[in-house]
Amino acid sequence: MTALPHSRLRSSSGGTPVRGGATTAPERLLSVLGAFDHEHPALCLTDISRRAGLSLTTAHRLVRALTEWGALERDESGVYHVGLRLWEVAALAPRGLPLRQVALPYLEDLYEATHENVQLAVRDGGEVVYIEWLAGRSSVGVHIRVGARWPLHATGVGLALLAHGEPEFQESYRVGPLASFTPCTITDPERLRRVLAEVRRTGAAVSDRQITDDALSVAAPVHGPDGTVTAAVSVVVPHAGAQVPTLVPAVRLAARGISRALGWRPEETVRDGAGRPSGR
Amino acid sequence: MTALPHSRLRSSSGGTPVRGGATTAPERLLSVLGAFDHEHPALCLTDISRRAGLSLTTAHRLVRALTEWGALERDESGVYHVGLRLWEVAALAPRGLPLRQVALPYLEDLYEATHENVQLAVRDGGEVVYIEWLAGRSSVGVHIRVGARWPLHATGVGLALLAHGEPEFQESYRVGPLASFTPCTITDPERLRRVLAEVRRTGAAVSDRQITDDALSVAAPVHGPDGTVTAAVSVVVPHAGAQVPTLVPAVRLAARGISRALGWRPEETVRDGAGRPSGR
Repeated sequence: MTALPHSRLRSSSGGTPVRGGATTAPERLLSVLGAFDHEHPALCLTDISRRAGLSLTTAHRLVRALTEWGALERDESGVYHVGLRLWEVAALAPRGLPLRQVALPYLEDLYEATHENVQLAVRDGGEVVYIEWLAGRSSVGVHIRVGARWPLHATGVGLALLAHGEPEFQESYRVGPLASFTPCTITDPERLRRVLAEVRRTGAAVSDRQITDDALSVAAPVHGPDGTVTAAVSVVVPHAGAQVPTLVPAVRLAARGISRALGWRPEETVRDGAGRPSGR
Repeated sequence: MTALPHSRLRSSSGGTPVRGGATTAPERLLSVLGAFDHEHPALCLTDISRRAGLSLTTAHRLVRALTEWGALERDESGVYHVGLRLWEVAALAPRGLPLRQVALPYLEDLYEATHENVQLAVRDGGEVVYIEWLAGRSSVGVHIRVGARWPLHATGVGLALLAHGEPEFQESYRVGPLASFTPCTITDPERLRRVLAEVRRTGAAVSDRQITDDALSVAAPVHGPDGTVTAAVSVVVPHAGAQVPTLVPAVRLAARGISRALGWRPEETVRDGAGRPSGR
């Protein structure tokens, strides 16, 4: 497998640095944190100042405060990284590490069963954010992508999450614009509507060469205790030779295992057409 | 295994909320983030204001800014949690998720080989911070402890990290005070000195009932590319029936595997008595 999907990362901060947009003290401080993203995990003071749209003096003052607190760490060469203390606080995010911690054994089982790349993702607005990404030691070409984002309609996890979102949200998302990554990317609202209905009917979403020309992902929704879909699980495989009928039950089982571990009881939940709970 | 070590968590923010200590704008904003810890992952505005030592008006203003940015999320009941955006930025911390991502396959192998709880930790000042904690689905009693802290001398990972720290740091740490958790906790500086020498000699650290009366951990150091010890790996087992001679090679192998994956080449590194590199 030479090329993997999701290899063209978008910045976790939305791709564009905040420039001149930070007018209040909290905004200025947060713009310093927002200067760091997947393409820029290590920055010198000048980079931070430029990316955050702050004067060098202001950037210096804020960086010092963040470093003292432990949100940033400065290495010997004067380059700043995100610090351990921020990681500790962020580990409390309910949709981050705690979800991942519950899901990990099921993701590992799925990896054992398929030996393919396994992901866990949640929805944030119109994007999926990857919370976990398991790849075997031998899976070359997989870099760290936890925290990466992609639009909902282009990925398996995104389709699984979108198909179970609020109907109003689905409608507004569906009418686009729908970004295109390959000739296979779904960009037609009507086709997307049919695909989402199929996802709800089958309990699984397939994204076939929608992100790169050579990869396919199979995803299934994860339900929270009240039945709402809170996350999605997927495997990514080479398009050539992909055994979708074999992957679907494995991915669905993993997703149901995580859902049960989160407290979901499918037998107690009656769902409406959109897969949302309609009373217990 | 009814009781596990490290079950009495200290707060990740050091245990005490910031009160009245935040005088600058950045400090006030960070004190809001610092109000969240393992015992307080969800807070209402009044809690935040009290724990951060801020007026309700100031807390409200800062919480709103943090929520707009995505560092906090507000649920339907008005309770605040740490937000996904903060988790995404924090995922860039080199000693957090990236380290964990490299280490995970080796931790999984160690778990497969031992079927015991497996941890990865780094040192922050005089404490260990857990970066990863693997526990099987059947391991009851294990809660989320990623981000938890314990003093160095009481844990296996802490002893492994301390034994390979700068000699001056070891000296200043050793003279204490050394907090006691059980009658077995090392509190005597001279005994600690002998234990640390033994850790360097054998390549493994054993913490026997130092945190709780019934658990034992075996740890080994993880080396970075330049040979310095940057993390430690351990397994935690019930004291009764613990097979230390069997666990030591498994833990050491996992630690060396992670070290190699990080770029360490032991054959190229000559070390001095403290296990630090002394030229290549």
